[in-house]
Amino acid sequence: MQRHIDVELAGIKEALIRMASLAEGAIGRSIKALVSRNAEMAHQVISSDDAINTLEIEIDELCLRTMARYQPEAKDLRFLAMVLKINNDLERMGDQAVNIAERTLDLLKEPLLKPLIDIPRMAEIAQRMVKESLDAFVQQDPERARSVCRQDDQVDRLDDQIFRELLTYMMEDPKTITRSVHLILVSRHLERIADHATNIAEDVVYLIQGKTIKHHAADE
Amino acid sequence: MQRHIDVELAGIKEALIRMASLAEGAIGRSIKALVSRNAEMAHQVISSDDAINTLEIEIDELCLRTMARYQPEAKDLRFLAMVLKINNDLERMGDQAVNIAERTLDLLKEPLLKPLIDIPRMAEIAQRMVKESLDAFVQQDPERARSVCRQDDQVDRLDDQIFRELLTYMMEDPKTITRSVHLILVSRHLERIADHATNIAEDVVYLIQGKTIKHHAADE
Repeated sequence: MQRHIDVELAGIKEALIRMASLAEGAIGRSIKALVSRNAEMAHQVISSDDAINTLEIEIDELCLRTMARYQPEAKDLRFLAMVLKINNDLERMGDQAVNIAERTLDLLKEPLLKPLIDIPRMAEIAQRMVKESLDAFVQQDPERARSVCRQDDQVDRLDDQIFRELLTYMMEDPKTITRSVHLILVSRHLERIADHATNIAEDVVYLIQGKTIKHHAADE
Repeated sequence: MQRHIDVELAGIKEALIRMASLAEGAIGRSIKALVSRNAEMAHQVISSDDAINTLEIEIDELCLRTMARYQPEAKDLRFLAMVLKINNDLERMGDQAVNIAERTLDLLKEPLLKPLIDIPRMAEIAQRMVKESLDAFVQQDPERARSVCRQDDQVDRLDDQIFRELLTYMMEDPKTITRSVHLILVSRHLERIADHATNIAEDVVYLIQGKTIKHHAADE
């Protein structure tokens, strides 16, 4: 027999998937704007952040109303608490996309420093992590979630590498300083996006297996 | 008559205050380590992060267990959901303190770039915001929470100012590049700490007044 709460939970899951697709879209466009030096696209990312913020609040409200109305049992409560957390991570990813778009607009004030290679690679991994963490949530797949956690190290290594390379650039030619610093910040924003995806993946493992791998993902 | 759940809620509140004091301590020590060039203190911040991470998980568990066991009414559920969020913000503040400590260790490899003035000022405001956001939560004081939100602009302005000043340093003397970049990152970490305090303050207003000021704090 289907319970009333199941209808609510399905609606919440659907809203969270919509939220994830908005966040993914913003991240994808912010990187595309950076790589193709497209100011209009960067402005789009910035102006579309309102929609993400509004949806975050709606999803929070939905969860709290469902908790209050149905007095759900432990398993459903755990699901709702995880939605609250994942929702928050997605909203912050949207913020990071806005940050990347703002850095892009700064970078467009000067000629291209160098063809971007490592940053798009890092962006690709980060975007894949976002997608896979949500897939893991939708399909309740702890193995996929663990794979997201493992990719986080790769992103951290690329972030370090980009940092060191750009320091070298700046030291060799001070004219590159402003642009290099903006690129270092872009790299940090991508690293944060990967962190949020890792948080989501950790929450998924916790939700399914009732076992926390938080703060220990790398040890596994 | 006192309800059983009130005992649980009081315990959770107490644990969250302990969590806040760990996070505040880490932030304070990370800045002290930076300003006084104290490597040992920086290492302390890094090694004490485990305690913060462990307590975060404990508080999450406490909230979820209380939700499941007592099937709380709407008001208490809202409180528990807010604790989950605030707990998360506090844990991330701890991470930012670790980041500052790591940057400090990098900075100690070279002589002092210049006496730090704006960064300690920014740190002072950020720390005050953290303290006041928690006070607002404990005393259920929406006015104090709104005051936290207003201070966030000040931190953002200082972050911009520090960024521009350090760019100038680097351009005038490429030998300062590595140190300047580390200081720019410290400033960003402080800005993130202030953001987390603002999130907490927004959650407090929401909890008390059932009215979201999220994403619109600056308009008020």
